[in-house]
Amino acid sequence: MLNLIPGWLTRLLAALAKRWPALASWINHRMINGLVESCRARPHPWSTAHPYTSWTALTDQSWSARHLAPVKRESLPDPAEVQQLFERNGDEQQYCKKSTCLFPAFAQYLTDGFIRTVMPSREEPPELRLRNSSNHQIDMCPLYGRSQMQTDALRLKSGKRGERGRLLSQQMSGGEEYAPYLLLPDGSADPRFAGILDEPLGIRDVTDHRRAHIFAFGGDRTNAVPQVAMLNTLFLREHNRLAGKIEQIEPSWDDERVFQVARNTVIVIFLKIVVAEYINHITPSPFRFIAAPKVAWKAHWNRPNWITTEFSLLYRWHSLVPDSMKWNGRVVPTSTTSMDNSLLTSAGLAAAFLNHTDQPAGRLGAFNTAPFLTPVETRAVMQGRLADIAPYSEYREYVSLPRPSDFSDVSTNSKTQRLLKSLYRNVNSVEFYPGLFAEDTVPNSPLPPLILKFVAVDAFSQAFTNPLFSPHVFKEETFSPVGWDAIHRTSTLADLVERNTPTGLQGARLSMTRADWTPVS
Amino acid sequence: MLNLIPGWLTRLLAALAKRWPALASWINHRMINGLVESCRARPHPWSTAHPYTSWTALTDQSWSARHLAPVKRESLPDPAEVQQLFERNGDEQQYCKKSTCLFPAFAQYLTDGFIRTVMPSREEPPELRLRNSSNHQIDMCPLYGRSQMQTDALRLKSGKRGERGRLLSQQMSGGEEYAPYLLLPDGSADPRFAGILDEPLGIRDVTDHRRAHIFAFGGDRTNAVPQVAMLNTLFLREHNRLAGKIEQIEPSWDDERVFQVARNTVIVIFLKIVVAEYINHITPSPFRFIAAPKVAWKAHWNRPNWITTEFSLLYRWHSLVPDSMKWNGRVVPTSTTSMDNSLLTSAGLAAAFLNHTDQPAGRLGAFNTAPFLTPVETRAVMQGRLADIAPYSEYREYVSLPRPSDFSDVSTNSKTQRLLKSLYRNVNSVEFYPGLFAEDTVPNSPLPPLILKFVAVDAFSQAFTNPLFSPHVFKEETFSPVGWDAIHRTSTLADLVERNTPTGLQGARLSMTRADWTPVS
Repeated sequence: MLNLIPGWLTRLLAALAKRWPALASWINHRMINGLVESCRARPHPWSTAHPYTSWTALTDQSWSARHLAPVKRESLPDPAEVQQLFERNGDEQQYCKKSTCLFPAFAQYLTDGFIRTVMPSREEPPELRLRNSSNHQIDMCPLYGRSQMQTDALRLKSGKRGERGRLLSQQMSGGEEYAPYLLLPDGSADPRFAGILDEPLGIRDVTDHRRAHIFAFGGDRTNAVPQVAMLNTLFLREHNRLAGKIEQIEPSWDDERVFQVARNTVIVIFLKIVVAEYINHITPSPFRFIAAPKVAWKAHWNRPNWITTEFSLLYRWHSLVPDSMKWNGRVVPTSTTSMDNSLLTSAGLAAAFLNHTDQPAGRLGAFNTAPFLTPVETRAVMQGRLADIAPYSEYREYVSLPRPSDFSDVSTNSKTQRLLKSLYRNVNSVEFYPGLFAEDTVPNSPLPPLILKFVAVDAFSQAFTNPLFSPHVFKEETFSPVGWDAIHRTSTLADLVERNTPTGLQGARLSMTRADWTPVS
Repeated sequence: MLNLIPGWLTRLLAALAKRWPALASWINHRMINGLVESCRARPHPWSTAHPYTSWTALTDQSWSARHLAPVKRESLPDPAEVQQLFERNGDEQQYCKKSTCLFPAFAQYLTDGFIRTVMPSREEPPELRLRNSSNHQIDMCPLYGRSQMQTDALRLKSGKRGERGRLLSQQMSGGEEYAPYLLLPDGSADPRFAGILDEPLGIRDVTDHRRAHIFAFGGDRTNAVPQVAMLNTLFLREHNRLAGKIEQIEPSWDDERVFQVARNTVIVIFLKIVVAEYINHITPSPFRFIAAPKVAWKAHWNRPNWITTEFSLLYRWHSLVPDSMKWNGRVVPTSTTSMDNSLLTSAGLAAAFLNHTDQPAGRLGAFNTAPFLTPVETRAVMQGRLADIAPYSEYREYVSLPRPSDFSDVSTNSKTQRLLKSLYRNVNSVEFYPGLFAEDTVPNSPLPPLILKFVAVDAFSQAFTNPLFSPHVFKEETFSPVGWDAIHRTSTLADLVERNTPTGLQGARLSMTRADWTPVS
């Protein structure tokens, strides 16, 4: 809707909305509904189970849903040639004008919670990638695990005063709280977790030193890079802080109730940050979206979540990853940081967050992926083919964006145009995954238009449908007065870092947006 | 809404609606929305998992949802005394003025598919009854099983022409098709089913003769009584009939696709019968509800199904069960028919259905349960206590019925009033389960008001939310032209019996409503 309004009027409305909450709320409803309604509402008629509508496809969520029906395609280009679209060819990395490294870190932490494509081992059939192990909810499973058994294993489970409702944790020097390590000091499996928590992906390929610092987390991807462990540590601390406060005001509550109410609160705080900080960071509009659940209460798009196979591709933002990262004052090549939590613990949580604010993310798009990640881009292309994903131009139409009639409608970059043309000849033949990343980014957003649209649609239609946001649940008694107050006082990661680190932020800026960013008009 | 309109106007509108489809559709929408909106929409804030709102309570469907929060109660009457409310004390069974025995048979078949309270063995803790094994969908699991593995075991899985998409079956004399038997002729387990299908409840307690006639069905309660097996057999035949037709018009489709499309069709045919025949039978209004899925497409009550613990109690209609049943010309005491499928196979399917039409059901309510079932009533009372179900009067208010202020507001029967008063003293103390059945039935309905309201609310809010009824799925290509045509030409069990029995109905009347029933005005 707002695309049709001239820029000066949009800015005027945005300024008025800041002073007039009723206007802000009205615009918020219109914008969110307008976005979500730009494509078909769930239930999706198809999943990866069958290439037609079946009861399995409509109900078995271990298959991934589909926005569009599969399309069998022939004579697609050699994937090694498609990989050129992502390669730098020796050029320097380009940076995103808007985003700091906190943005890709948060995106990775967020999506690891619900995009859970099954990763077949070398011995297993590649078709396993058509399945997922997702709960299809924003449920903080990297923190709490995906099942009751995992949640139980991660809890302290103590009825003692001062310990009720807590997640297991360890205190390190300087008053820094972290999750316990997954392994015992002698390197053997800790029986509290072995066979219960998912084995961290990649744990078998790392050095003993790194293995010793792997945390007992709910997610098998949560130890993958230290910036994801950083985010999970922040929410672990917030959970335990809340449990302590809830225990104080509700002395009659047992361990179970303190835990459950703290968990309710942490999930909603996370949802609030997703909308108020993350989505507002990616949106090019001067309007700020408001995390007001009411917009979904009577919405006809409020239907059960189901992560799509397209979503598992369009969220692979490898080119955002910088070539090197500053950790604790030292510049470290990103390719070497995999599963190295000692980078986080040696820096401390607040410093690690501030380091992420100080560095720009890469520019998302063509010819800009770090060399160590280009093979991963090729695997994504292959996954798209395995799932018979429809062509890129079909998806443009599906989300109400103009269908490209020429390669110049995809990208203004002549090198990108030439490469796509040589690969696909016809713009309607461009594959989904390369097309997503060939596009120019949207002015004032770190994302290109098709990705931006999908992310916005799915963020709103899958975050606001959270049962904790539902009309008879989203009220003080679900969260306790302490939790309800924390929910209302939290809308950014900075709020959480301030109250969950020994030193706090001491006035330092913590943001997904670069300090030197100014919007273009 | 329609309660407020005088009777003559209701009848006039109903007559007009028959001639004017747009009016019928408008009234249908208003009536359905009015009914469903008489209580809170899902998601329910509680389940049997915790006595407060928790993430487990909001997401783990192996616990049963709750309409109202649990209420711990003290000093409740001795269950043996409560059982008096159901006992006949030597009086003759009273009959329902409206319903034939086909009505309770269908109700049992329908609810066995989604009310799946876990039944603990004597050695297991009774708290297991707070859990369920339901898919929370009307998915025809008595026919297809509750899991992919069970479905696979029940299928013929043949790629041959003339066999594609079929469920396993056997032909008996007279051209009668039934499911295969669960056991081999020597009484040993058939390896196709052993360990895959749920063990039929009660199979260990019956004679070898009955055990030999137990069918390989998807549900563990589907062999419980021959009238339930009768209904499942009907849908088995319809599935295989449809598969044959679909195979003919789509010769390129493989076994899998023929099966899936036939299953889509059978589920929707069943949903249509639930609304058009079953719900219209229980409704006291002269309006006929229409199984038009559109009413739910934008409804704010279209939220994921979740069977409640209250539902598992209010659907125990034991007093509908007649003391004896005619099977194949012979009158058999109902207490002896448990798991005796030979009654069905010796009669044949059409005759069995017609026998059910010829006999009145019992009157639902106080002092009318067959003696062999009164202990089951007591178990229901105990289950209500185990789940800390709130008092009866709270539920009246919850579904927008007047809260009783005296025992005479519950029942006009002085014996019922006296008994309730002696048990509970105060009408606000009456327990949910006894209160449900103490009420008078509604004029022109087989059900009393509180049960009627819950059944209508849950039927609409859980049937119309079926994914096969959703806007982008409910169209011809999901069902094939054959299936789409069958859906539109089917609204009663009679339609199915006509086309799935060797002789058909030959003009005989087959109905849930007694031939001698006339509505009171």
